[in-house]
Amino acid sequence: MMTQIFYEKQENLLLDFVQQKKYSQIILLADANTNGFCVTVFKEIFPTFKVSSLIVIPQGEQYKTLDVCSLIWNQLENLQTDKSAIFINIGGGMISDIGGFAASLYKRGIDCINIPTTLLAMVDACYGGKTGIDFNSIKNNLGTFQHPAAIYINPILLRTLDERILKSGFAESIKHALISSSSWWDEMNDYTVDDFISLMNIKKSLDTKIGIVAQDQKDTGIRQTLNFGHTIGHAIESYSLQTTTPLLHGEAILLGLIHELRISEHIFNLPASVALKMIDLKQKFFPLLSFQYTYDDIKLFLLQDKKNKDGIRMSLLKTIGDCAIQVSVSIKQIQESF
Amino acid sequence: MMTQIFYEKQENLLLDFVQQKKYSQIILLADANTNGFCVTVFKEIFPTFKVSSLIVIPQGEQYKTLDVCSLIWNQLENLQTDKSAIFINIGGGMISDIGGFAASLYKRGIDCINIPTTLLAMVDACYGGKTGIDFNSIKNNLGTFQHPAAIYINPILLRTLDERILKSGFAESIKHALISSSSWWDEMNDYTVDDFISLMNIKKSLDTKIGIVAQDQKDTGIRQTLNFGHTIGHAIESYSLQTTTPLLHGEAILLGLIHELRISEHIFNLPASVALKMIDLKQKFFPLLSFQYTYDDIKLFLLQDKKNKDGIRMSLLKTIGDCAIQVSVSIKQIQESF
Repeated sequence: MMTQIFYEKQENLLLDFVQQKKYSQIILLADANTNGFCVTVFKEIFPTFKVSSLIVIPQGEQYKTLDVCSLIWNQLENLQTDKSAIFINIGGGMISDIGGFAASLYKRGIDCINIPTTLLAMVDACYGGKTGIDFNSIKNNLGTFQHPAAIYINPILLRTLDERILKSGFAESIKHALISSSSWWDEMNDYTVDDFISLMNIKKSLDTKIGIVAQDQKDTGIRQTLNFGHTIGHAIESYSLQTTTPLLHGEAILLGLIHELRISEHIFNLPASVALKMIDLKQKFFPLLSFQYTYDDIKLFLLQDKKNKDGIRMSLLKTIGDCAIQVSVSIKQIQESF
Repeated sequence: MMTQIFYEKQENLLLDFVQQKKYSQIILLADANTNGFCVTVFKEIFPTFKVSSLIVIPQGEQYKTLDVCSLIWNQLENLQTDKSAIFINIGGGMISDIGGFAASLYKRGIDCINIPTTLLAMVDACYGGKTGIDFNSIKNNLGTFQHPAAIYINPILLRTLDERILKSGFAESIKHALISSSSWWDEMNDYTVDDFISLMNIKKSLDTKIGIVAQDQKDTGIRQTLNFGHTIGHAIESYSLQTTTPLLHGEAILLGLIHELRISEHIFNLPASVALKMIDLKQKFFPLLSFQYTYDDIKLFLLQDKKNKDGIRMSLLKTIGDCAIQVSVSIKQIQESF
């Protein structure tokens, strides 16, 4: 199914879309955080939506579990929800992940609309059809591929977002520029916070992801370019979660991008100026981000579940706008990026 | 994904198929029943399969639950199973339902091969891509659409099957004849038990289902012809499960077919001879099937979750080989079939 994307000022189009589908019920899913400002704004923007029920789940990645799904499914049972209903997921990536997952299984799949409320979710998580929950503490260990029927993006929902969480969305947007467009990457020289959260920048990010996912729904080829920065970024994130100063996903990806740009220098002769500009962006927007780690700290997380203990494969940048996948990288080359 | 179907004597083709896919692990899933004769036969037929692990779950529909899935997923974690693994589901429809469901979610989906060990599973449940588990006692309340990569059918696996369970597979095969082919339906005049369990009859049934599913994967149109006999059949089945003489699924569908043939007479002028032959088949193969029920017994199950309390929609036969879907039937017309 194609996902219809509606932006701020296209509210009537989304209303028409929902009316045409004749859904039997509209179920809002929010977390303890978004069930405040965001749900209120939603109701103001869409006063004519007939919401059958609001399901509120606890906030935080630690609740992206099967138990919370069971709570959701129990509520659907109580509401006698049938398979013509629709979920509206209002929240960050956690809500679209678990809401999309729960919806994709109920009666073998009911539709979803994602309304992302963090920048990270707007530029990345809201689109792509990957749903998931954690199982045995392994991230997204269970999941499905099911595209949302629609997405609605309105930066007004970012208004009350904590600054640190807001900025953590920059990393995925920067990654999208790096793997897709040198002119966009050049524009980022002068980007301000407002530029990052502008509808134009969000739209560019989403369009990049849409173009890539369209070529590889199931993530077996070119979609892996979206993993640029994530092999090392995820390892840093996992390590940080065991320390007293855990990083946000986007912060860890920012650091991962710097490492993987350096490795791209060694393997593909990417100009050193790219990693240097990346470091400048980090200084400019994340002056307080000073997480300390060494290769030894993250190596266990990096090599986990990888078959070849002598090295790993990752996505790396050949030039701005051209990302290679499945590039073999030695442990030594990774160490040199530290 | 297309499902490859391999029959008895095509074992080498299945072996080639599996070898080409280079699966990282082969996981056998069986229940307490099939983990005996059937798993032994499987190992004799495929001695060169390198099975990483055998997961055995309790036997019976009451174990088609999220808790049992969690047990399966925990075992996969312990085995460090990655997303290039394959499940081989050895059992009846319960095993392919839950095995397919668990596999379709693990790491967002690993492949399955179904090896049906009941006639019902061979002619129906093994194919079609519907996976599912029960939730809050509602059948297949959670599920996914994921076609098995392959199916292997060998009637030798039926050899130790209880006769009552074996024969309960006849109903779906009869239904396939009714909705697809008058010549096949005519042949059934002289069918013996051996004819029903012959590879030829199984293949005809599967081919019927394959042809229909190919036109309507997600069950929004013509696939509903496969529900012929099931609207009333399911209601009889649900009622019987509350009595001391529960029916098997296929037995209830046999009774449902008789009712829905009678309703087809009233609505589409289907010749009365069809229902009469159906009753003859019931007498011939199920002489001991004498479950007593009235319309009042089953009406609650029939009208459950249906919006229109004045009547319901069902699939009905216009002529042999031509089944209509979504036909409005009044309560009175249903009552008259009793």
